[in-house]
Amino acid sequence: MEIKIMKNILDRNQNKADEVRNLLALKKVLMVNLISSPGAGKTTLLERTCEELCSKYRIAVIEGDITTDRDAQRLKKYNIPIVVINTEGGCHLDSHSISKVLDSFDLENLDVLFVENVGNLICPSQFDLGETFKLAMVSTAEGDDKPGKYPMLFREAKAVLLNKTDLIPYTNFNIDAFRSDLNSINGQIPLFEISCTRRDGLDELYRWIRKQIDNYKRS
Amino acid sequence: MEIKIMKNILDRNQNKADEVRNLLALKKVLMVNLISSPGAGKTTLLERTCEELCSKYRIAVIEGDITTDRDAQRLKKYNIPIVVINTEGGCHLDSHSISKVLDSFDLENLDVLFVENVGNLICPSQFDLGETFKLAMVSTAEGDDKPGKYPMLFREAKAVLLNKTDLIPYTNFNIDAFRSDLNSINGQIPLFEISCTRRDGLDELYRWIRKQIDNYKRS
Repeated sequence: MEIKIMKNILDRNQNKADEVRNLLALKKVLMVNLISSPGAGKTTLLERTCEELCSKYRIAVIEGDITTDRDAQRLKKYNIPIVVINTEGGCHLDSHSISKVLDSFDLENLDVLFVENVGNLICPSQFDLGETFKLAMVSTAEGDDKPGKYPMLFREAKAVLLNKTDLIPYTNFNIDAFRSDLNSINGQIPLFEISCTRRDGLDELYRWIRKQIDNYKRS
Repeated sequence: MEIKIMKNILDRNQNKADEVRNLLALKKVLMVNLISSPGAGKTTLLERTCEELCSKYRIAVIEGDITTDRDAQRLKKYNIPIVVINTEGGCHLDSHSISKVLDSFDLENLDVLFVENVGNLICPSQFDLGETFKLAMVSTAEGDDKPGKYPMLFREAKAVLLNKTDLIPYTNFNIDAFRSDLNSINGQIPLFEISCTRRDGLDELYRWIRKQIDNYKRS
């Protein structure tokens, strides 16, 4: 019975996600669904992203949070359009909540929409929001065994961002073990090893992101 | 409609949780439901717990994981009864899965049952397993703003463990901000500031845990 209900919920989510994806394709707005555990560095990545990309691209952000607008407050200084979705206890965003807030943006004058999902390595990976692709983020402080233990996201994402590489010397994180674990789950996926606070590895990451945007615009 | 379904699921979970709680009360087995984000240090805490308590108490563990038995493998060296529950994608344990595996333990000869829930700061806090109490764990690497952003667990838990205090010098974690944030969500809750890898702060924590076990036995 519960499986049937879950299937209905996912089907309805998928239909609305397809609508969102079609609308954004029409407007040539690339949408990134950014997913990680709490505190892996999603908001800091968005801060770096504004600094790196705002001069060339028109960026907007949807902040998914259970409660509070703390992450949105951190991004206010970049003067970009930001909408907060408070899930009030919900453990992930869904396509219906995304669809409802798309009206708030001037899609004609937008290149990229970043969605910071609720901090959760599990549930958000099961709900298509209509994004162009998912980005998986994981922090070195979480340990090198996460791809195998939480495989869904690492199978679904278009790229993996390993953040907080500056903490490796102070933890028992083994980068070869992590790479090998990720490889066993998804051998094809690009991996970017970065430190958002130290700005390490960001050149390569933003080269890749710019390429995604430019290819999408031309498609 | 979905709200009604969710209410039914939670009601059925609650009934079974009450059964589990009554059975464990009869057998005088204290059950701890350990909840955190992925990689906050739950399994390392259980390693320390075996080292600190196994000489005086009879301990068993239920390992909740989406897939793999990696955490259970880490605990094998302590020769305690361990049962793995793989949720196959599920984002939390529930009371039915706990109830089903209780038969695997010799409850007459057990003092404490630790349940390591699936790594998730949100969903597990909504499902009563029949535990004596919940323990909330959070790592300093996740940032000092987590209680306010993920308030449900911090309201539900009997104590909070702030782990990885050894990483504070290498992050922007502000311990006064964390304490104040936690205080605004739950002013009464005991906070233990620990490093499971460096064994800092563990004496005070295990004094508190031993007191909980002894009080429960006498109740």
